[in-house]
Amino acid sequence: MIDCTTDFSKIRIILVHPTHPGNIGAAARAMKTMGFSQLYLVQPRLFPHPDATARAAGADDVLTHAVITNTLDEALGDCSLVIGTSARIRALTIPLLNPRQCAIQVLAEAKTTEIAFVFGQESSGLSNAELHRCHYHLYIPTEVNFSSMNLAAAVQLVIYEIRMATLLREEILPTPPQQDSLATSQQMQDFYCHLEQTLIAINFLAPSNKRQMMLRMQRLFNRTRLETTELNIWRGILTAIQRKISEDIC
Amino acid sequence: MIDCTTDFSKIRIILVHPTHPGNIGAAARAMKTMGFSQLYLVQPRLFPHPDATARAAGADDVLTHAVITNTLDEALGDCSLVIGTSARIRALTIPLLNPRQCAIQVLAEAKTTEIAFVFGQESSGLSNAELHRCHYHLYIPTEVNFSSMNLAAAVQLVIYEIRMATLLREEILPTPPQQDSLATSQQMQDFYCHLEQTLIAINFLAPSNKRQMMLRMQRLFNRTRLETTELNIWRGILTAIQRKISEDIC
Repeated sequence: MIDCTTDFSKIRIILVHPTHPGNIGAAARAMKTMGFSQLYLVQPRLFPHPDATARAAGADDVLTHAVITNTLDEALGDCSLVIGTSARIRALTIPLLNPRQCAIQVLAEAKTTEIAFVFGQESSGLSNAELHRCHYHLYIPTEVNFSSMNLAAAVQLVIYEIRMATLLREEILPTPPQQDSLATSQQMQDFYCHLEQTLIAINFLAPSNKRQMMLRMQRLFNRTRLETTELNIWRGILTAIQRKISEDIC
Repeated sequence: MIDCTTDFSKIRIILVHPTHPGNIGAAARAMKTMGFSQLYLVQPRLFPHPDATARAAGADDVLTHAVITNTLDEALGDCSLVIGTSARIRALTIPLLNPRQCAIQVLAEAKTTEIAFVFGQESSGLSNAELHRCHYHLYIPTEVNFSSMNLAAAVQLVIYEIRMATLLREEILPTPPQQDSLATSQQMQDFYCHLEQTLIAINFLAPSNKRQMMLRMQRLFNRTRLETTELNIWRGILTAIQRKISEDIC
């Protein structure tokens, strides 16, 4: 037999608003066959459910330990690499990876970084806003005329690639240099709030018309992947702007 | 979008005695997303069946054209490369391939040879006799303690690998759509000047001690690679800060 001692405990699979409990079970089964265990469910329509248990076919422990959250933000928590899966290419793009490229990227960080894979609802996929929470857009190269993959099948493919990359690792992967810790998803959300307040305060942004601009900012900073020190510098800059403005007013 | 003109018409997927019609539908869907159409069913327990149609989710044509046979021999017909998928390693082995190796093997022959992939019954897999009809034993490297993959998920993985191998060979993997032009080096230098002035104006930066911080900023923005539109947004933000400060002073 093949002995695969893999540790994917820092990689979580997030299903956003899954509609069919059977797909949750099938995703859990897919995860367990590939050595993954961290399942997060954002407002599942029906869970727990007998269909989920049936389709899990023995991966009950993955279901039992699934974390259920109200928002994607909660599910992302302290992740600092977030990868969104979508079959639709958007107008305002974020860096695109195919599953193989993605596996290499993930593997380079899987020992030190909390990583999230985000999968959208069966019928509609990820919204633009959800996809812009992600650093990378993972694109499975399906047929153009029939790109509708089953949710659990997509999960299966993506994590299979990570598993394969792990098994092939010694040959294909350079070790990334030691770097400063990366900002977590929650830290970035707090930063965006701070940034938005400040942009409004300097009259750059109208509160009524801020959405598109803030999406652009997310896209830009997600591409950068701020280190914690850099994040702190930015928070300092924003605070300095706010202080300067109130100082000048007084 | 990606234009993948792939031709997998010489590759057939054979399901031997599938028990659950839902799995037949899910396999058909998996096939259609990956550009495959030749489905053979050896004595399916229930087919056609509403569960098959439901899980096919639009891949009805694959189901409609599925060839139903009484024996594996009939399904194999004129194939001269036969690959059997099994999670169990047998005492009397035949050459073992993982899905990636298998895809390379298949690709080398897919233009000239009729090729069959054989998948066993859900609960028991391929019998020894069935596996010995095959030239290769395809082994998906699952967890040792939980190797039970769903039938359609296994089909999905195997044909995905063939599709990937094809796309990589023909170099037609997705590239990001045309994006906004990137800022030039000179534009970035002007931006850093503007940024530095502003950081000094808000008292974030002391003129005597600015070098290290400005290096950090360059490092960050070089990593991002600003698009022209993004650069213009940042110039706008800096100008808004300067205007706000002078406004408040007056």
